[in-house]
Amino acid sequence: MAVKIGLLGLGTVGTGTAEILLDPTGRNPLLGDITITKVGVRSLDKPRQVQFVEGVITTDLESIVNDPDIAIVVELLGGLEPARSLILQAIANKKHVVTANKAVMARHGDEIYAAANEAGVYVLLEAAVGGGIPIIKPLKQSLGANRITSIIGIINGTTNYILSKMTADGADFGEVLTEAQQLGYAEADPTADVDGLDAADKIAILASLGFGGRVKREDVHCEGIRQVTAADITYAEQLGFVIKLLAIAKGTEGANSQQLQLRVHPTLVPKDHPLASINGVYNAVLVEGNPLGQVMFFGPGAGAGPTASAVVSDIMNIVAILQSSGVSTTLDPLLSCVHQHFCQITPIEAIKTRFYTRFLSRDVPGVIGYLGITFGNNEVSLESVVQIGFQGELAEIVVVTHHVCEGNFRTALDEIRNLEAIDSIPSILRVL
Amino acid sequence: MAVKIGLLGLGTVGTGTAEILLDPTGRNPLLGDITITKVGVRSLDKPRQVQFVEGVITTDLESIVNDPDIAIVVELLGGLEPARSLILQAIANKKHVVTANKAVMARHGDEIYAAANEAGVYVLLEAAVGGGIPIIKPLKQSLGANRITSIIGIINGTTNYILSKMTADGADFGEVLTEAQQLGYAEADPTADVDGLDAADKIAILASLGFGGRVKREDVHCEGIRQVTAADITYAEQLGFVIKLLAIAKGTEGANSQQLQLRVHPTLVPKDHPLASINGVYNAVLVEGNPLGQVMFFGPGAGAGPTASAVVSDIMNIVAILQSSGVSTTLDPLLSCVHQHFCQITPIEAIKTRFYTRFLSRDVPGVIGYLGITFGNNEVSLESVVQIGFQGELAEIVVVTHHVCEGNFRTALDEIRNLEAIDSIPSILRVL
Repeated sequence: MAVKIGLLGLGTVGTGTAEILLDPTGRNPLLGDITITKVGVRSLDKPRQVQFVEGVITTDLESIVNDPDIAIVVELLGGLEPARSLILQAIANKKHVVTANKAVMARHGDEIYAAANEAGVYVLLEAAVGGGIPIIKPLKQSLGANRITSIIGIINGTTNYILSKMTADGADFGEVLTEAQQLGYAEADPTADVDGLDAADKIAILASLGFGGRVKREDVHCEGIRQVTAADITYAEQLGFVIKLLAIAKGTEGANSQQLQLRVHPTLVPKDHPLASINGVYNAVLVEGNPLGQVMFFGPGAGAGPTASAVVSDIMNIVAILQSSGVSTTLDPLLSCVHQHFCQITPIEAIKTRFYTRFLSRDVPGVIGYLGITFGNNEVSLESVVQIGFQGELAEIVVVTHHVCEGNFRTALDEIRNLEAIDSIPSILRVL
Repeated sequence: MAVKIGLLGLGTVGTGTAEILLDPTGRNPLLGDITITKVGVRSLDKPRQVQFVEGVITTDLESIVNDPDIAIVVELLGGLEPARSLILQAIANKKHVVTANKAVMARHGDEIYAAANEAGVYVLLEAAVGGGIPIIKPLKQSLGANRITSIIGIINGTTNYILSKMTADGADFGEVLTEAQQLGYAEADPTADVDGLDAADKIAILASLGFGGRVKREDVHCEGIRQVTAADITYAEQLGFVIKLLAIAKGTEGANSQQLQLRVHPTLVPKDHPLASINGVYNAVLVEGNPLGQVMFFGPGAGAGPTASAVVSDIMNIVAILQSSGVSTTLDPLLSCVHQHFCQITPIEAIKTRFYTRFLSRDVPGVIGYLGITFGNNEVSLESVVQIGFQGELAEIVVVTHHVCEGNFRTALDEIRNLEAIDSIPSILRVL
């Protein structure tokens, strides 16, 4: 029985998806049972890498989500609208949905899953996180026996490329960003990537799956990589670290598992940590749970081929279910979204983490002593204080803390900022 | 609806499995729907870490596979018999089977899957390869859109521990093996691990899933790590490699995808390769396909907790299907074994690979020239020939080849062995 699908969007990922489906030889035989009957695009005039017979390509996107012959709608438009409305309309018409759209799922997943559960259809999104890396289905289907304690990912290829390149070449953020834009690794408007918004979308999705509760996208504390300098990368290197943009979802220690930390920020990662060696546009997600321990998933985090591989795997999973479970309308509880409650999020001031901070200070006696006393008064225990060099007449001092409460640390910094001897605090980074 | 399961075996993994199922809080809610109603053991008198109510534990294993109330039989006995017979009997009684038994599945998978397909039941085996790492289900459900070109794994924790320790300490095989045995990382009879048999079982299973054809276990060419010396590890290090026991399934270039190389052997891995940094008892599997590129799965390859995590995930997948698809008897084609044909295996003489070889030679002029000529006559092109030192009066010469046909290489070696000046050839290792 051939299953008819409709694609919304024929950009990079849409083209990659069509290329796999139109050339099934040597792949899983189930692909032979899938037919693309409609493809929705913005303009009919654009030249296309893939050819369809007359009438398949249309600019009428609504005709796809309303087509009674189509069983699965594959949304590859990106962005919030019209993606959200088309997904909801497809669900209302009892069509299963496959999407690569992290933005719409991170923000409207609640509404979309509620509609899908009521209609008895699946909404699968393997391609939304980690490109070609299987991570969504493993979290849903392979790791549920565990109490998940943390999910830590390098899940934005653009920023990982920029930070890797800054590390390898000793270059500053601005010049590497320009180069990345020329190479097509960064967008003309790089905000979503370099400010961590894309990674925040993705960790919201992963956290919801791993910790079994809904997550509000706006609860993700988010800092990008614009403030990371070549100097910090060098100092971090000397201290045994590399700097990575990490997306972190972590059960707060001592609290119940629904108390979650959710944050995206540049982080000093010890060089022998599994995530330290993930370079370039690669992504990796490290999941820790009990009794499992640590597992890591590594691979290409973007690109037409890898992302299409994930999209097609979702399509295949729905086709396999359609072929095996027949008329059943009860959803597989491991593949659908069954949780109703929202996770409690720990405010950023309440998390415990280590910090790396760089101070520029006038070269007067007693500064290091004052730093030590001020941190100590605020219960911030220090691992090291090193005067690492000079910038002109200013002494450059790097402080690394033990695990401390972020709120206490910020209070101490406010006090330190008021000290006459302190010129500025150019860098505040967290340490894994 | 609670699903009743029976465990065969309450050793390390059986105990880990029971511990998860008896303590479901904070894990996937589906675990609350699973009840262990029988546990088969060899002796009732042994002290147990987990307690069951009277009557659950029995020595009558057949009563479990014949119990009409039990829907899923979880085989954790290991070994070929009685595991094989009990699995077949469970299937005959239309029970689904979950197993961690690579030996029985690599050797009798053909018979077991044929019976399962006829009975309309699932046989899942996530725990058979890579301990807690999700690799079986990703291969079945997430990577099928690709033409898989290779699967390369470090899938035996014992040998990876021994090789990592030999590398870190400069120690020889024998002493590290003894230490590993004392620590419980190696069995009293280490044959299955150190001779590569366990890795061969596992790559046979992975190859069958990745390349979509049945595989005969005896077709896996298998060499263990007993011949790896501290000297070779040092020389490999100088050349930019680490030595790992790799299990390799690879489509032979130019042939169709059913022409497969299947081999387990110690291998020189370039230090910047993703598998080079997998150390200790960790496992990793690198899958390469088109259009995906490379993805790697990394984690704990053994141990009660990780392996139980995989076993329970399989149980949960079957329970999820039972709850959603109801009375359907058509198996999900992505979760069942649908291929009927056997993969064609490329004979080891016909594969193309690089070699590292160490010769001990009497110190007479012209030896290196003779080596070069003999290899050249046999179409074996060399990358480097280095006289690396002396052992007593014998010169130690290390040769690294380009990609060459193994048959030609072996013919050249036979000729070289007959040369008066050559004392011996202590090491022949392949290079990735």
